[in-house]
Amino acid sequence: MSKPTPLSGFPELLPADRSVEQQLTDHLRRTFELHGFASLETRAVEPLDQLLRKGETSKEVYVLRRLQEADDATDTGMGLHFDLTVPFARYVLENAGRLEFPFRRYQIQKAWRGERPQEGRYREFTQADIDVVMRDELPFHFDVEVALVMAEALSALPLPPMRLRVNNRKLIEGFYRGIGAPDPAVVITIIDKLDKLPVEAVQKLLVTDGELDVAQARQCLALAEIESTDVRFADQVRALGVTHELLETGIDELTQVIEGCASATSDRFQVVASLSLARGLDYYTGTVFEIYMAGFENLKSVGGGGRYDALASDGKTTYPGVGISFGISRTLLPLLSRGLLRADRSVPSAVLVALVDEESREASNEVAQRLRARGIPTEVASSAQKFGKQIRYAERRGIPYVWFPGTDSADGQVKDIRSGAQVDADPDLWRPPDQDLRPKIITDETTTEEQDK
Amino acid sequence: MSKPTPLSGFPELLPADRSVEQQLTDHLRRTFELHGFASLETRAVEPLDQLLRKGETSKEVYVLRRLQEADDATDTGMGLHFDLTVPFARYVLENAGRLEFPFRRYQIQKAWRGERPQEGRYREFTQADIDVVMRDELPFHFDVEVALVMAEALSALPLPPMRLRVNNRKLIEGFYRGIGAPDPAVVITIIDKLDKLPVEAVQKLLVTDGELDVAQARQCLALAEIESTDVRFADQVRALGVTHELLETGIDELTQVIEGCASATSDRFQVVASLSLARGLDYYTGTVFEIYMAGFENLKSVGGGGRYDALASDGKTTYPGVGISFGISRTLLPLLSRGLLRADRSVPSAVLVALVDEESREASNEVAQRLRARGIPTEVASSAQKFGKQIRYAERRGIPYVWFPGTDSADGQVKDIRSGAQVDADPDLWRPPDQDLRPKIITDETTTEEQDK
Repeated sequence: MSKPTPLSGFPELLPADRSVEQQLTDHLRRTFELHGFASLETRAVEPLDQLLRKGETSKEVYVLRRLQEADDATDTGMGLHFDLTVPFARYVLENAGRLEFPFRRYQIQKAWRGERPQEGRYREFTQADIDVVMRDELPFHFDVEVALVMAEALSALPLPPMRLRVNNRKLIEGFYRGIGAPDPAVVITIIDKLDKLPVEAVQKLLVTDGELDVAQARQCLALAEIESTDVRFADQVRALGVTHELLETGIDELTQVIEGCASATSDRFQVVASLSLARGLDYYTGTVFEIYMAGFENLKSVGGGGRYDALASDGKTTYPGVGISFGISRTLLPLLSRGLLRADRSVPSAVLVALVDEESREASNEVAQRLRARGIPTEVASSAQKFGKQIRYAERRGIPYVWFPGTDSADGQVKDIRSGAQVDADPDLWRPPDQDLRPKIITDETTTEEQDK
Repeated sequence: MSKPTPLSGFPELLPADRSVEQQLTDHLRRTFELHGFASLETRAVEPLDQLLRKGETSKEVYVLRRLQEADDATDTGMGLHFDLTVPFARYVLENAGRLEFPFRRYQIQKAWRGERPQEGRYREFTQADIDVVMRDELPFHFDVEVALVMAEALSALPLPPMRLRVNNRKLIEGFYRGIGAPDPAVVITIIDKLDKLPVEAVQKLLVTDGELDVAQARQCLALAEIESTDVRFADQVRALGVTHELLETGIDELTQVIEGCASATSDRFQVVASLSLARGLDYYTGTVFEIYMAGFENLKSVGGGGRYDALASDGKTTYPGVGISFGISRTLLPLLSRGLLRADRSVPSAVLVALVDEESREASNEVAQRLRARGIPTEVASSAQKFGKQIRYAERRGIPYVWFPGTDSADGQVKDIRSGAQVDADPDLWRPPDQDLRPKIITDETTTEEQDK
């Protein structure tokens, strides 16, 4: 077999980078569980009719075919999921009778899309979703809860500062109704293009496709310009002089989210009422979220979500939900490839037990086992090379300590190979400082700050 | 959308069962990392030519097709991996220049096979693999190491007792050569059928297909009958009077594994030299392993592996390896479906903070946040129902504690709803006993013992 080459869009990590990903994922999981979110994993495949319910994503689906099917073109009728929301909605319907509502779940899994790969967009990627789903009616306070949980999870991570943009579908739809737009849904779609097209082009579209007059179009653009880190957005909206019941409900809901998230705001995490935010997918019915990473606005959003009052319904019962998804691959891979994040070692081992000679391997194994018994990740040297070579072995992997077994007891000496300090040690008593127990994430703060500018 | 139905062969777990799976997986991971094995994840897909190198599994591969490809029958040339060994071998070749050898890695991931589903055999399943790979030559002690690590990982799990069967390809091949078998590989394939066919049928095949005379065939069957929990198998083999250099090497290697694993043997884990074991796949070159679960022999092996001296090679350099794979889905799902394992709660929450009324939600949130700050998973009641209903809410989820916030401070009382005991408590000081912090796995010991008989 000749040397294989990577598959475009299917990124894989080297061990040290994988350790960074694992630590980030562990942290997200820990925060989600502290808030009572239960882990869920759904199968990788869904029936095609489920995946194609929202036609717009159909082009991205990978369909599965059994290799040995008689007819080569016969598909299984299944495709790989392209997000975690569609499978979750299906899971809730399928298991509704056996779930307790409100049902808080997190899901950290891979998803697949057959789109053209570019930085931040992969054909296989990992995302972390949290959602709360209820039967019949979901109290509004959950819109605040999911935002707070994600804010808490992301704030503590060694990532560039994050910005959570929040808007409300009722607010913008109410506004568009209030100015007399014939089809508010079309206006939402056009306003959504503001991050791709110049304002003038969007204004033109509002007139041609949105069937608005120029004054109405300018009102819509004025609304989209409003952005505020506190509840003053409400006054700015009202200053535009449009009134509609739905608009008032939307202003009230958005106010609750912005107020509720005040405690989560820091220099690592900002929450912004951002009235241009619409989100393309049409199942959102109230709050909408998008997450941006400072210095990496070129990636567009690295997360998003919102409230969907009827994503799952079996005709008799409706299951409203609210949730946020965070793109682990989309965030992490650009940071890793720029060297802005890295791990200080490529193995879990905190200690390498040296080997005096092949005959004393059992003694080295025993030292290792005694360290492991107290939770210290340890490996034993592969072969009885000169000690200098064994130290180099540890260095290349970033293992901070080398243990030299004693001659006639299990005791010996342990060397911190970073400082060179070497001390007598008992494998039943010695332990490294807590921060050396596991691999650490190292951030290149300087470079991160430059990126932020 | 009408109520969806499960897809055969694609099992999904309810939250409490998922928590069992998560705890088992966490434990495996912890043990692997204590021994210095680094986490690795490979992409879900491999080029078809990689997957089909060992033609025998080709029928099980799911091939990927882009839904919107112009030509409906055009595949991407990629298929879902059916194990974790093929992707790992490819990963090692692809990244050899950037890895440190010996490279210890564990990989806990899903794999897919399009085969007919039955208990213990799924189309989507999770397995946990550990392997050590070296450049050029891999010292034999790693054969012992992977067995010991897997033994340690499985012994501590609340599963039925496990049995690790070990054999050595050199031993049996040397034996077959020693008796003058014209094609030892064919003999291995036939002996491998002993768990499916009666001895007489196998003997007949050894004569017809293996081209042995009856005396030779009986020798092979006598070898296959040898089974021993200690190194006495060596004498039993030698008593058969066959000599061959390769046979002696095999006896020596198997002796080392059995001796090396003596410390891992307990009433939870047995290591057996089992000379009928061959394993079908042809890349094993020395030690071979299979794992069986007591009382569930109908599942056949729940794990397996061995030494492969040339699984990965780029023509210039060869990367020998040794590893064991453990089937998480294959083991766990039958135990869960029989109720032999379950979790004591369906949510991570150890505490439910009750809600006096909607106006005091902020106070309840604050209590919850103070508990979480000290690592106690906590949720707040969804609505201000009567306290009796809120306690029922906790009960249904298995949350052991309900916190009743005080009236004018954040303090209050906490009730253990299992015992009914209720005490004054400070959210900055109170903590549950450690065993209540996370969901626990409950085993039905009685039933498990019955299964063992």
